[in-house]
Amino acid sequence: MGEFELIERFFKRPATRSPLGIGDDCALLQPSAGMQLAVSSDMLVEGRHFLSTVDPERLGHKSLAVNLSDLAACGAKPLAFTLSLAMPRAEAEWLAPFSRGLFALADAHECELVGGDTTRGPLCIGITVFGEVPAAGALLRSGARAGDDLWVSGSVGDARLALEAFRGTLSLSGSGFAAARERMERPTPRVALGQVLRGIATAAIDISDGLLGDLGHILRQSGVGARIRTDLAVTLLAASDAPLDTAARLEFVLAGGDDYELAFTAPPSMRARVEAAGRASATRVTRIGEIEAESGIRLVDAQGREHEGMFKSFDHFA
Amino acid sequence: MGEFELIERFFKRPATRSPLGIGDDCALLQPSAGMQLAVSSDMLVEGRHFLSTVDPERLGHKSLAVNLSDLAACGAKPLAFTLSLAMPRAEAEWLAPFSRGLFALADAHECELVGGDTTRGPLCIGITVFGEVPAAGALLRSGARAGDDLWVSGSVGDARLALEAFRGTLSLSGSGFAAARERMERPTPRVALGQVLRGIATAAIDISDGLLGDLGHILRQSGVGARIRTDLAVTLLAASDAPLDTAARLEFVLAGGDDYELAFTAPPSMRARVEAAGRASATRVTRIGEIEAESGIRLVDAQGREHEGMFKSFDHFA
Repeated sequence: MGEFELIERFFKRPATRSPLGIGDDCALLQPSAGMQLAVSSDMLVEGRHFLSTVDPERLGHKSLAVNLSDLAACGAKPLAFTLSLAMPRAEAEWLAPFSRGLFALADAHECELVGGDTTRGPLCIGITVFGEVPAAGALLRSGARAGDDLWVSGSVGDARLALEAFRGTLSLSGSGFAAARERMERPTPRVALGQVLRGIATAAIDISDGLLGDLGHILRQSGVGARIRTDLAVTLLAASDAPLDTAARLEFVLAGGDDYELAFTAPPSMRARVEAAGRASATRVTRIGEIEAESGIRLVDAQGREHEGMFKSFDHFA
Repeated sequence: MGEFELIERFFKRPATRSPLGIGDDCALLQPSAGMQLAVSSDMLVEGRHFLSTVDPERLGHKSLAVNLSDLAACGAKPLAFTLSLAMPRAEAEWLAPFSRGLFALADAHECELVGGDTTRGPLCIGITVFGEVPAAGALLRSGARAGDDLWVSGSVGDARLALEAFRGTLSLSGSGFAAARERMERPTPRVALGQVLRGIATAAIDISDGLLGDLGHILRQSGVGARIRTDLAVTLLAASDAPLDTAARLEFVLAGGDDYELAFTAPPSMRARVEAAGRASATRVTRIGEIEAESGIRLVDAQGREHEGMFKSFDHFA
């Protein structure tokens, strides 16, 4: 199967939104009046971002999901994407489910494939995604202010839990493993939440590199610090019955990685609106701390006492 | 060297055109009033698109050049690009020249790096490039009309010549090899020509997959055919003294590949304007044939006689 047949069979669909879909040197895009185009690129490499044994349909979903998550973190509405695909062989058995998973998520977000590239090579999936956001209305990393609440969407740490189960460092029940694996392989980008948070959140970020590490970007770019209530943070792990002690549970939540959730900040006066945004987008939102003028991240217990010991090591992220 | 240090050291520069440069979840872009955004993605894989021994500075140049060539084929003015880079190791000895070559070409076209991704993996370079073009002013593949002239920019076939010299299937003089290698490793995207051809050319395409194959896309999407004068086509090879017989010379020109030139069509009434466009962009333009109503590609000699034999095999591209 040649490149053109491959594109025809698995990736070509009627263009709807783009003035020009797949099949010219460039795709043409135009944001609506008053809107800016938000752009993000992510690359997934076999062995690094996914296991060679992963279900191709789930991989198709995840490849686009991790990109949509970046749009969500800017509050942008998805429009279109390009796909660059290097693969060792062009096999229908792989391409059919991969493209099915990809397009199922794309269709759910009305996000159109407008171009790309296919080539032979080690399996490597590069997606660039386009969304639109009102001019000056994007959620940025730089807007957090001392006194803001710190919120996190959805559940966090479960992808790491699945990874550790795959690695054999811990053992989960059948249903526990299935649930954690679902979080790792079929993450839900928080696209709807991101859009309703426009005008409510002061800063937002996708925490796919780990909650503390990515929060550190908000703190640095906003010139502030944060205090996190560990008793609230541990509730972010969906697998409440996972065989983990509190320290491991907290580590998975704070530094697990591969969670396509949003961390965001908003003034306390916006609490009711944040909670309404969560309901409107059918997304759990959890307040886990607050922004402070002093730089760095402080982990505190329910009584406000700072943790000692291992948690100090997280300071280098701040 | 971690991902963030790598980005800071080699890829972070002050944002100029993008409202938001590198360092948020998305970059924000806005085409000027009345303009559309032209978007193209290309992926380069080691061993497939470049040799592992290539000079990283040249590779940085070529990685962006092949993408700019797609903008050129649409008549778009470059604005920005994203870079997704998978590589086995983060080595300053490689990253410094790679980013130097990349930015030298980017700066020459005022094309700004606005985002991307770096990860460990087999060397794989994914670029998505953004340009702007007047709404409804893009050069498309679908506009060729019977009676139009068929033109090609620059020189064609020399990259294939260099590849064959690398493979050892032919031998070139020192200066001949250097010139052909330059064409293979440091192609010049025809960005200036593409823009001045707006309103003059009826269709255009980047011929990086080979002149006949890519011309076939114009013909199919325009519902026409073409007649090519082989005595004119062979003059497209810059290396006029290469040790090739006429058949090999013609094959390199017609199906060599890896040439980042434009094939384009324009009515005969536009000949003077096409030649002026070539002069204005300091780019050679050569008329090699014409568009006909009958589908397929016919190769003819100076007297208009159709070639027989090997050239028939090119028909399957049409």
